[in-house]
Amino acid sequence: MFPLPEPMRAALDAARDAAKAGEVPVGAVVMRGETVVAIAANAPRTLHDPTAHAEMLAIRAAAEALGRERLQDCDLWVTLEPCAMCAGAISHARIARVYYGASDPKGGAVEHGPRFFAQPTCHHRPEVYSGIGEGEAGALLREFFAARR
Amino acid sequence: MFPLPEPMRAALDAARDAAKAGEVPVGAVVMRGETVVAIAANAPRTLHDPTAHAEMLAIRAAAEALGRERLQDCDLWVTLEPCAMCAGAISHARIARVYYGASDPKGGAVEHGPRFFAQPTCHHRPEVYSGIGEGEAGALLREFFAARR
Repeated sequence: MFPLPEPMRAALDAARDAAKAGEVPVGAVVMRGETVVAIAANAPRTLHDPTAHAEMLAIRAAAEALGRERLQDCDLWVTLEPCAMCAGAISHARIARVYYGASDPKGGAVEHGPRFFAQPTCHHRPEVYSGIGEGEAGALLREFFAARR
Repeated sequence: MFPLPEPMRAALDAARDAAKAGEVPVGAVVMRGETVVAIAANAPRTLHDPTAHAEMLAIRAAAEALGRERLQDCDLWVTLEPCAMCAGAISHARIARVYYGASDPKGGAVEHGPRFFAQPTCHHRPEVYSGIGEGEAGALLREFFAARR
């Protein structure tokens, strides 16, 4: 086992914070080179905001911190395969690289469903790396849903 | 010619406000029955927020106003075919009906590209009505881009 890269470790910590708050445990981190620009936990229930996925909150916080709507020099680390909403936002933000943990056959839109980045109408395709920390990310999700059944 | 429904008229007014602010002219309105819950204009540049499409801002404002993340009793009116990000948000918010104006072959994700609501993994499909006010919505967009060429 290689140690997990620091940004994914931070994203997993954010996912754990989400679970503690009663939210589906997903976390995301925006990096600019070696620098953390934003960390966010999934929070739609807490914020009463159906768009408040971890990726969306991290992208919005990063854009605000940098004072611009394009993050072409930034990478996104997220514990779960992004959905269509988040994949769309990643393209709009011009994120350079996406690193994600667990696959999401039910709601993912990168390797499942609409496979957004592979669509001819997708105007910006980040580099995508998957499976980083997927064991831990998937376990967090399974524990969360098992406890609620 | 039938007169335009009031919510689309309000969405077109918001699109015009967007253009005045130097933003791509798209406007959106969330209705709950006959009541306006939120009106928003496209504002990614102004807000330094790549997710700040009119639909996203209207959905977020409506959810905040109603104090809940699900808008199953609400309809969305928008001047342009929603993109993948916005279509995803519409599903997450459980919006009942979507009325849109102009088609968007380049970035739309309802009748173009990923056709998100037709995907087997789409967990909520609103009723969709298109072409309402498309002439005016399309003219606003063409004028905006022609002036910038």
